[in-house]
Amino acid sequence: MPQPALPNARVQGGTRVFAIVGDPIAQTRSPLVFNELFLRHDVDAVLVPLQVPAADLDTVMRGLMRIPNLGGFVVTVPHKIRLVEFVDEVLPIAARVGAINCMARAADGRWRGEIYDGEAFVAGLRKFGRDPRGWKVFQAGAGGAGRAVAHALAAAGVARLDLADVAVERAAELLADLSRLYPDTVFRFAHDAPADSDMVVNATPCGMAAADPLPFALDPLGPHALVADLIMKPEQTALLQLAEARGLATHLGRHLLDCQAEIIARFWGALP
Amino acid sequence: MPQPALPNARVQGGTRVFAIVGDPIAQTRSPLVFNELFLRHDVDAVLVPLQVPAADLDTVMRGLMRIPNLGGFVVTVPHKIRLVEFVDEVLPIAARVGAINCMARAADGRWRGEIYDGEAFVAGLRKFGRDPRGWKVFQAGAGGAGRAVAHALAAAGVARLDLADVAVERAAELLADLSRLYPDTVFRFAHDAPADSDMVVNATPCGMAAADPLPFALDPLGPHALVADLIMKPEQTALLQLAEARGLATHLGRHLLDCQAEIIARFWGALP
Repeated sequence: MPQPALPNARVQGGTRVFAIVGDPIAQTRSPLVFNELFLRHDVDAVLVPLQVPAADLDTVMRGLMRIPNLGGFVVTVPHKIRLVEFVDEVLPIAARVGAINCMARAADGRWRGEIYDGEAFVAGLRKFGRDPRGWKVFQAGAGGAGRAVAHALAAAGVARLDLADVAVERAAELLADLSRLYPDTVFRFAHDAPADSDMVVNATPCGMAAADPLPFALDPLGPHALVADLIMKPEQTALLQLAEARGLATHLGRHLLDCQAEIIARFWGALP
Repeated sequence: MPQPALPNARVQGGTRVFAIVGDPIAQTRSPLVFNELFLRHDVDAVLVPLQVPAADLDTVMRGLMRIPNLGGFVVTVPHKIRLVEFVDEVLPIAARVGAINCMARAADGRWRGEIYDGEAFVAGLRKFGRDPRGWKVFQAGAGGAGRAVAHALAAAGVARLDLADVAVERAAELLADLSRLYPDTVFRFAHDAPADSDMVVNATPCGMAAADPLPFALDPLGPHALVADLIMKPEQTALLQLAEARGLATHLGRHLLDCQAEIIARFWGALP
């Protein structure tokens, strides 16, 4: 029998198992990204997709969390908020955001939850030489990922954050929270991107479906503005296509996922 | 990003997931064998090891069985008997043996359980050109796998089956069951392998540990006798080493596993 060359091609008895839980799950790129990462670092681990219907979340998670060689989860739609209650310890950003996107089993068996969307988004910017320190940023969307990104941008030292959301109260709550934590940063509620924005970020789901309208207009922006989208599928959203057509720099949603895999794998203790 | 060449090196969102459940689990060869099989048949599926402590069996299995893209299980020690109660339908051999070694989710969502140890053992013999039809066989061990093997040997048309077990009642019960089902075959209780045996089979756990005594003596056997062991680790048990030293043909435990993977993968609907 030939020995396959790739570590996760030969998942074996001692291989550490990780899972992404969500519903639907077939569209997720996470297994590809994580398994490629394990492969690159020669780590004997595999990440598998597990479809977990919302109605069965309790039953399934109570079961999965008792499997000793299953060391961690990536948490995706629609479980990010409900799974906060399942972990023994909610880490700081997750506590503020009210959502987790990953769970790790600590050495003592306790489960910890955190959300790394924001940290990974900022890491992705920096990977392309774009440090947001001092930037004026416009962001649409204050949902789970949006909140995490806003917190991370504030922590990264943006000078100003203009926030738009159809749910005004949700946005106001986030702005108040951020203002308390980062008194030197300007936080404002906005409807449209100001002309002097250094970056505009789409943190709404607008753009996942082909028929979606644009999440916001690009008309006011100057030529130096960076247009970022958190959406991963399609990779080239209508917003990013329009930005390119106008000669603006763009930043893809998948950079977040690529950076996040490393951050989460370290959180699991699966990477050195 | 380079595209890994092997299908299960790139487990992705749509990959079908299967699991082997047992405790301990790190020693199992099943993931290697199944994943190599999926690879060879270009099937987008992966089998992962899941350690399931006996104390958590209910909680874990109730959870796992609700995951729609988890289509089947290999069941190993110590869960083969208890999981019989978890399936909606117990297939014929499992019902007779009182144990299952695999579970499959049917199209209607119902779970079915069967034990294929015996069928796989006979398939392994045939793969090496050894059809047991008409053979006189001595077998030690009437536990779960032993019962399955005895049923399969009877179904394959052996002329005589001599059965040894330290638990005499268990052996007697199996012999009575087999005698009813196969009235043309001779079934006897035995302590030692008769000199005219065509094959002797070790279906006891004796030989897994280095300090184990031999499960039975090879002294009475003629030169044409085949010595088979169901033990997979170590691959070369003391029994098989002694047989080789005496010039007798041997049959390894792993042939059962190799054949079983195909049979079980078909039971899952994962192989064409």
